[in-house]
Amino acid sequence: MTGAVRSRGPGRRPGPTETREAILASARELFAEKGYDGASLRAIAREAGVDPALVHHFFGNKEGVFIAAMRFPVDPGRLLPVIMAAPRERLGETMVRTFLEIWSDADRRAPILAMLRSAMTNERAAAMMREFVSSALFARAGAAADVPLVNVQSAAGQLIGVMLLRYVIRVEPIASVPEEELVTLIGPSIQRYLDHSAP
Amino acid sequence: MTGAVRSRGPGRRPGPTETREAILASARELFAEKGYDGASLRAIAREAGVDPALVHHFFGNKEGVFIAAMRFPVDPGRLLPVIMAAPRERLGETMVRTFLEIWSDADRRAPILAMLRSAMTNERAAAMMREFVSSALFARAGAAADVPLVNVQSAAGQLIGVMLLRYVIRVEPIASVPEEELVTLIGPSIQRYLDHSAP
Repeated sequence: MTGAVRSRGPGRRPGPTETREAILASARELFAEKGYDGASLRAIAREAGVDPALVHHFFGNKEGVFIAAMRFPVDPGRLLPVIMAAPRERLGETMVRTFLEIWSDADRRAPILAMLRSAMTNERAAAMMREFVSSALFARAGAAADVPLVNVQSAAGQLIGVMLLRYVIRVEPIASVPEEELVTLIGPSIQRYLDHSAP
Repeated sequence: MTGAVRSRGPGRRPGPTETREAILASARELFAEKGYDGASLRAIAREAGVDPALVHHFFGNKEGVFIAAMRFPVDPGRLLPVIMAAPRERLGETMVRTFLEIWSDADRRAPILAMLRSAMTNERAAAMMREFVSSALFARAGAAADVPLVNVQSAAGQLIGVMLLRYVIRVEPIASVPEEELVTLIGPSIQRYLDHSAP
C-alpha cells in the first residue's frame, strides 16, 4: 500500500496528479514483486486504492502502465507505426535512423541504458524486461512486419550491440561516425532480417 | 608495491608461480590506475619487483599481461588465426559459430559478461575495455580481414547484442534456437560487413 492517495485527510479528494502517481507507485512495486506477467491491472488498482477504470483512463492498458512506471523512454505503441509507415524496402534504414535519433539524445538514452544495466546485474530486472520486450515489443513488431520473432530479435541485437559500442564503451571509430554513415552500413543488415517473411 | 615477491624472507627465491602472480597483481593495479595505454610493461615489472625480461618471458607482451590479469576469457591472438583460416566467403558463419561456441560455455561466458557489466557501470572499466578492444581486438581483426574498423565493430555489435538477448535477457525464441540456426540467420550479416574491403 503506497498510501499516496489514501493518506490525505478526509474531506479532500486526491487530484489527478496524485492519483496517477499513486497508480505508478503501486505498479512499480507490483511489477518488481511479481514481474510483468504476474502483476494485473486489477491488483495495481487495488494496491493504489483506486478503481480499475481509473487505471484504464490514465494509461490505457498494462503496457501503458509499465512504460510509465518504468519510465521506459520509448513507447512501442507510438514508435512502431512511425517505422512501419516507411516503404517495406526501406524498413531497415528507417529503423536504424529512428533508433539513432533516440539514442543520440542523452536524456532518452539514459533510461534505456539504466534498464539494460539492471537487466545485466539483476535477475528480477532481467525477467521483467524479458517478459515486457517479448510480449510488447518483439511480438508486436514481428506481427506488424510479418517476420519470425527470431529475426526481429537478431535485428534488435544488432541495434543494441551498436548502441553499446557507440554510446557506452565509446570505442572509435564507431563512436563518432556520422549517423547517416551508420544508416548506410547497418540498414541493409536490418533489412535482411525483415525480408525473411514468416513461414 | 604488491610485495608478493619481495615480502619473502631472505635466502628463499620466489618460485615461478609466485613471480607470475606478483606480476599479475601489479598489472591489475596499474591497468586500473592508468588504463591499458598508460600502464607500461616496465612499470608493471618495477611494481612487481621483477626484471622486465621476466614479464616478457611469462606473458609475451602487454596484451598477454592484460588478458591474463583481467582473466579475459578469449585471447584474440589465438582466436583470430582460427577464424581467419576459414575461406573468405565463410568468414561470417565461422565467426558466429566460434563465438556461439565460447558463449554457450557458462564458464567462458561469465568473465566476458563481467567485463561488459563493469564497462556499463564504471567509466574507468569502460575506458580500459575501450583501449584494449580498440588496439588488441578490432585493429587486429580489421587488418587481418582488410576491412574498415567501423565494419568490424558493426559485426562485433551484432554478436554482442545477440549474446545479451540470448544469454542475459534470455528472451524467447532467440534464447533457445539451435546454434546452427543462428549461424544461418546471422552469418550472412557478419559476412556482409566483412565483404566491404577497406578503401
